[in-house]
Amino acid sequence: MWTIIGTWRMAKEGVEEGAKLLAQGSSALDALENAVKAVENDPYYKSVGYGGLPNEEKEVELDAGFMDGDTLGFGAVCAIRDVANPVSVARRLSQENVNCVLVGSGATQYALNNGFEKKDMLTERAEEFYQKRLEEMKKELNAYRGHDTVGMLAVDAQGSMGAATSTSGLFMKKRGRVGDSPLIGSGLYADSEVGAATATGLGEDLMKGCISYEIVTLMKQGLHPQKACEKAVSELEEKLKRRHGSCSDLSVIALNNKGEWGCATNIDNFAVSVATEDGCKVYHVVRKEGYCEAVEADRAWVDLRVEE
Amino acid sequence: MWTIIGTWRMAKEGVEEGAKLLAQGSSALDALENAVKAVENDPYYKSVGYGGLPNEEKEVELDAGFMDGDTLGFGAVCAIRDVANPVSVARRLSQENVNCVLVGSGATQYALNNGFEKKDMLTERAEEFYQKRLEEMKKELNAYRGHDTVGMLAVDAQGSMGAATSTSGLFMKKRGRVGDSPLIGSGLYADSEVGAATATGLGEDLMKGCISYEIVTLMKQGLHPQKACEKAVSELEEKLKRRHGSCSDLSVIALNNKGEWGCATNIDNFAVSVATEDGCKVYHVVRKEGYCEAVEADRAWVDLRVEE
Repeated sequence: MWTIIGTWRMAKEGVEEGAKLLAQGSSALDALENAVKAVENDPYYKSVGYGGLPNEEKEVELDAGFMDGDTLGFGAVCAIRDVANPVSVARRLSQENVNCVLVGSGATQYALNNGFEKKDMLTERAEEFYQKRLEEMKKELNAYRGHDTVGMLAVDAQGSMGAATSTSGLFMKKRGRVGDSPLIGSGLYADSEVGAATATGLGEDLMKGCISYEIVTLMKQGLHPQKACEKAVSELEEKLKRRHGSCSDLSVIALNNKGEWGCATNIDNFAVSVATEDGCKVYHVVRKEGYCEAVEADRAWVDLRVEE
Repeated sequence: MWTIIGTWRMAKEGVEEGAKLLAQGSSALDALENAVKAVENDPYYKSVGYGGLPNEEKEVELDAGFMDGDTLGFGAVCAIRDVANPVSVARRLSQENVNCVLVGSGATQYALNNGFEKKDMLTERAEEFYQKRLEEMKKELNAYRGHDTVGMLAVDAQGSMGAATSTSGLFMKKRGRVGDSPLIGSGLYADSEVGAATATGLGEDLMKGCISYEIVTLMKQGLHPQKACEKAVSELEEKLKRRHGSCSDLSVIALNNKGEWGCATNIDNFAVSVATEDGCKVYHVVRKEGYCEAVEADRAWVDLRVEE
């Protein structure tokens, strides 16, 4: 019995790739790397990998994290450029004992020296969005909208778990800006003896609650992934509103080592892609009074391949 | 009633600076920034700021983190170069709502564009250590020894708390390598409603347990900082040995909002510098059967200004 889940509709094709591998007996880690690569390689999604939107200097700087839930091995790259698959570099680093998190030019240099594919990650389409936003910014001050990370979690037939994330981060971010996605405990965490969690939304807010580690801690205390997600989001939202004066988008998913999963959000359009032996489904995460409900998306919406 | 504590003997002069400010009614955050700056500015300490040891390409790349326990505001710089006081940049970033974590050339660029002091951080002494190590590395493989972060925690007379870290990271690290120090939850965490914690040791191991967030969580559950530190270190050590196959140096300190503090380690030479209204003392952290004890260091050892 295996399960693989990912944040947003954009995870679907990747999750299906991962599911194929898991059905053939692959490890959770192989499934996750390939699933995230599929999203990174898709030029259509503007917040991950190839086609991701650039920073304010028109450079595509990418972040990725990877965690092995068996060994707790963790690797990440931050603000890496010109490398086709940041998630694969993060996975390789998760197998090292030191130098597991690399940032900036050091990350790029490591990847290119170690045979990872070089690629110009700025697409024509992304450049058009950049030019359009530059124009808009002359009118409005807020440069920050759209910041969706693909985060995936898997448990394989052996009960091994992992977590992986990849993102181009905030559109029009400052050079070198890093959100929660590649940060252990904030963007992702995996422990095969308990479960795994990952987050998407405004990284600067998500990290203030170490939300992925918090969710795994709650699952360790016995909470179902759904309850753990709801509790972590509602508590962090309350805390940030009260003490920081504001709280932006917080969305999370979690999976335990029994294959049970959960999701929660404080926004209206979060979605999650889930594959098990019964196939792959996409769910809207609908906020109710005090809880969240995963409602299956209809075929037409899924086929639209909507960008959330 | 205020308290400021820091990791290692090297924190002492900084902690005394911070204590002076706290005694005059300064905020925990002002005390922390100035305390860490004092350590950064001291060319004698080889693992922090000016005089810190370089990476394998002979570049001094520095990391710092800063957290406001009232607002949960968090800022960090990773692999920043040629900037005198990384902790001050991290503090400034902790006041922003986005772009709070900056890495690599983006971090350096932000600092220089925003008036932070430019400085060549490689001292002659650090260069001599580098050349010596290059020679040694021709004989032995292990390039990694000495990786001490200064981490400080404070509570001020108003009950506000903060945490700050600064380090040059692993000597002979790869370009762009980042450890736990600037990572929220791993290297530091502060919540004025509970307490604060910070870590030093091998960052790649410390981050696998999000150890600073874990300690604050344990204090929230009612544990004294001493018990919280001991539990977090012993559990992470056990987990890493069993599942990762090895566990390197883990040392932590914690402070709660009542001014009670604690410390724990799995090594033999950890020390902690503590200042309260009763003055500043340095303690050896001595490991006993199942717990750790802080034993006041004698004057001669402290005056030696030993580098741990």
